[in-house]
Amino acid sequence: MNQTLEKFKEYLKEVRQYDLASTLLTWDLQTMTPPKGLESKMDAIGFFSTKSFRLLTAAEYGAMLEELSAPEQFNELDTAMQITVKRYLREYRRFKRVPEDFYTEMVTTSARSEKAWEKAREEKDFSLFLPYLDKMISLKKQYINYMEPDEDPYEVLLDTYEEGMDSVTIEKLFTELKEGLVPLLAKIQASPQPDLSALAGSYDIDAQKKVQNMLLDYIGFDFEAGAVAQSAHPFTMDLCPGDTRVTNHYYETQPISSIFSAIHEGGHAIFGQNIDPVYEGTAVEQVNLMGLHESQSRFYENILGRNKNFWVPIYAKLGELLPQFQTIPLDVFYRAINDVHPSFIRTEADEVTYCLHIILRFEMEKAIFKDHVPTEKLPALWNDKMEELLGIRPSNDAEGILQDMHWSDGSFGYFPSYLLGNIYDGMFLEQIEKELGSLDTILAEGRIREITAWLNEKIHKHGSLYNSREVLQRVCGREISAKPLLDYFNKKYSEIYGF
Amino acid sequence: MNQTLEKFKEYLKEVRQYDLASTLLTWDLQTMTPPKGLESKMDAIGFFSTKSFRLLTAAEYGAMLEELSAPEQFNELDTAMQITVKRYLREYRRFKRVPEDFYTEMVTTSARSEKAWEKAREEKDFSLFLPYLDKMISLKKQYINYMEPDEDPYEVLLDTYEEGMDSVTIEKLFTELKEGLVPLLAKIQASPQPDLSALAGSYDIDAQKKVQNMLLDYIGFDFEAGAVAQSAHPFTMDLCPGDTRVTNHYYETQPISSIFSAIHEGGHAIFGQNIDPVYEGTAVEQVNLMGLHESQSRFYENILGRNKNFWVPIYAKLGELLPQFQTIPLDVFYRAINDVHPSFIRTEADEVTYCLHIILRFEMEKAIFKDHVPTEKLPALWNDKMEELLGIRPSNDAEGILQDMHWSDGSFGYFPSYLLGNIYDGMFLEQIEKELGSLDTILAEGRIREITAWLNEKIHKHGSLYNSREVLQRVCGREISAKPLLDYFNKKYSEIYGF
Repeated sequence: MNQTLEKFKEYLKEVRQYDLASTLLTWDLQTMTPPKGLESKMDAIGFFSTKSFRLLTAAEYGAMLEELSAPEQFNELDTAMQITVKRYLREYRRFKRVPEDFYTEMVTTSARSEKAWEKAREEKDFSLFLPYLDKMISLKKQYINYMEPDEDPYEVLLDTYEEGMDSVTIEKLFTELKEGLVPLLAKIQASPQPDLSALAGSYDIDAQKKVQNMLLDYIGFDFEAGAVAQSAHPFTMDLCPGDTRVTNHYYETQPISSIFSAIHEGGHAIFGQNIDPVYEGTAVEQVNLMGLHESQSRFYENILGRNKNFWVPIYAKLGELLPQFQTIPLDVFYRAINDVHPSFIRTEADEVTYCLHIILRFEMEKAIFKDHVPTEKLPALWNDKMEELLGIRPSNDAEGILQDMHWSDGSFGYFPSYLLGNIYDGMFLEQIEKELGSLDTILAEGRIREITAWLNEKIHKHGSLYNSREVLQRVCGREISAKPLLDYFNKKYSEIYGF
Repeated sequence: MNQTLEKFKEYLKEVRQYDLASTLLTWDLQTMTPPKGLESKMDAIGFFSTKSFRLLTAAEYGAMLEELSAPEQFNELDTAMQITVKRYLREYRRFKRVPEDFYTEMVTTSARSEKAWEKAREEKDFSLFLPYLDKMISLKKQYINYMEPDEDPYEVLLDTYEEGMDSVTIEKLFTELKEGLVPLLAKIQASPQPDLSALAGSYDIDAQKKVQNMLLDYIGFDFEAGAVAQSAHPFTMDLCPGDTRVTNHYYETQPISSIFSAIHEGGHAIFGQNIDPVYEGTAVEQVNLMGLHESQSRFYENILGRNKNFWVPIYAKLGELLPQFQTIPLDVFYRAINDVHPSFIRTEADEVTYCLHIILRFEMEKAIFKDHVPTEKLPALWNDKMEELLGIRPSNDAEGILQDMHWSDGSFGYFPSYLLGNIYDGMFLEQIEKELGSLDTILAEGRIREITAWLNEKIHKHGSLYNSREVLQRVCGREISAKPLLDYFNKKYSEIYGF
């Protein structure tokens, strides 16, 4: 038995314990911590992140990684461990360039910034968030400057969330999409609009929670290996082996919001819950390929959840839990969940205009990181771009720049992942229909778990063994392309709107 | 500035961070962790408890404590810090006699044992819990044997939960009570029994949660400094400054159960939430005086919550939240919450027979620790004592020895605290009426927060600055006595049952 390897594995276990403490504290902060308990929790997150950071920058750790990278040892490792050593050595070299005090400051500022964002959004007041956002932008730039002094910070960020991705490729894909979507949206807006007044009303929140659980179970979320809670913004968290959590939010007048957030986060969670346990303790169980991750959540949310046939086997059940749906025909519900129109909030947007919401954010991030636009000018820039892309202008910042939590914790470069995910989904859909036959039929017959099994086998179980481009090659046998997604949109919405 | 003192305070902060991680993991384990995530969480609890244990047994820590205990330094410390140094030095000397491997084994076994107890209780099968209970008993004996090799283990345990308390004093108080309660119970059982059929029915659990929150708010629980969740067995947890949590459990046919658990845990939480923040970081904010702690929870639950006048200002509100109560007169409800009769489950017992439940557990613990009765004989012994004290015999172990979680995590010696708490309550009630006037009037006029303010001022804010006997002296000006509690019982129940 390789002694260094054993020591290395033990060492990683200790890192994971500190990471679990930070992650659980963050979970608690988002779902349960009362206002007066925030300070202590944020301090603790700083403490445990620093512990983990120290281990990941220790000379002893670097020496183990160097030793395991030497050819005679490296060639003896299995593939997952080779990936682990390669990935962690790269991170080690990056991390050790970051001063510890700086790192602690960044982590604690990030936790504080999230809470400031929450308050600012609640009070629709950007000025409460401005100093935090400003600080997070400069901390992030400085952070990357420490890690990769010779690289363009935004390119590093994009690569962090989707290995191998760069702004030129994204720009090309997004431009192709924009050029296809703008005329499609125009045609949709010129068509007769559906009457959705039947959905108006108040929907009991406890009943919405029951619907959420029914849907999670239906698509394959394993309640023995996960749990659900409430938070300001829905998210998914892989807490530790055997425990993947999702959150949701609820609006009394918008049951569709919690329904689709549940399906979306459920998609993320199903990915996390189905990574092969052989990868436990390696880098492969950590999936930082956010485009690929979002492709899974968005596949469930849109390609499956917004298909009429998804609802055929369970629409009666929905009516049992939320009786209002008993008097709403499935056709009306289907029109409601595919009602395409410009709106302010990304997470509530239909799947067509959603793409434009992401393009806006990508352009904003370029403005921040490439053009260095001052932070106080960002809200107006956001509103201008909203008008340009969607033809509407937010009346306050909660409808504009304050709506998403991502920038509050420094997750710049994450947003493009959503649209990349959509693009991959077009390709996965094409492939599934080739291999399993008509999606409409599978869904209508209640065989959705066959789709989940296909995704488990082709994608989930491998964790981050392959990057997204490799996955597309292996699963679809081709390079990334936005065409299948555009084809899907054109076919679906010409049928719905009848043009 | 005293350098050692500063270093000591910093050192304690680090200990608190590890303790917070363990506590939060335990909270999560009890309220949210799905089955497949248990192992990882229990490992993590072992990891962080060991970290904390290492700090508390380090030579460096011992040296600081010795230095601060030397007269020239000690006399410079404020009272809270003097108590901290004294208490922690004693613990240090005890702890450092415990081998680290043994400690880790005890902590992880304890977490596993809790989960085994949960399953055993669910399946009404003591055999599933037997090996864990057996292990916990021997681990606990061994643990105390390491710490205090010359002391009687059960006396050490009693002192751990209620400083200065011993089995002879408890025996004397409990015997006095038993001699007063047995004839009282006989008189009650010989009296006409109330018709409580009006309460039968099904009570919505989401509505029970709303009632719980209304009650917590009414008695003075601060939702800005606490939160509520669901667990198998209700408990209260001081997580960190500004965050004191309670849990509850819900039965569709027994709303009274969640109502009184809420008030009980609320009482604990109000104690934790009102300790003076000047004691933060010292031993004084840690209240291991469990008799005193239980006196607060049980004061709210029984002396206040089971008083008819407690309900006068809020009974209409209860009916709004749980409409069934609109047709149940307050008099019937009052009889229901003071319906004295022998029953199996301690936490569901009326306040009179409750005392006998505790006396039973005290006798069981003496059998375990003083007479060394083999673990497999404990269920039958429990049932025999139940018959002897309450005249009824459990039909399965879920109704008997499996009902409480305390022994599963090794909390032997805790049970007497509940009854000691009751005894103190009799004394506090007497004192409150002397100082503030008739409790009935205060409650009927909705001035319950005046009681809470009195308890805050006299008891809560001091944390563990004084032990329970000192508190009784300071607050009531007398030694501990069971007489006021017996007087309260005799007066209240002769009125209710009319003898």
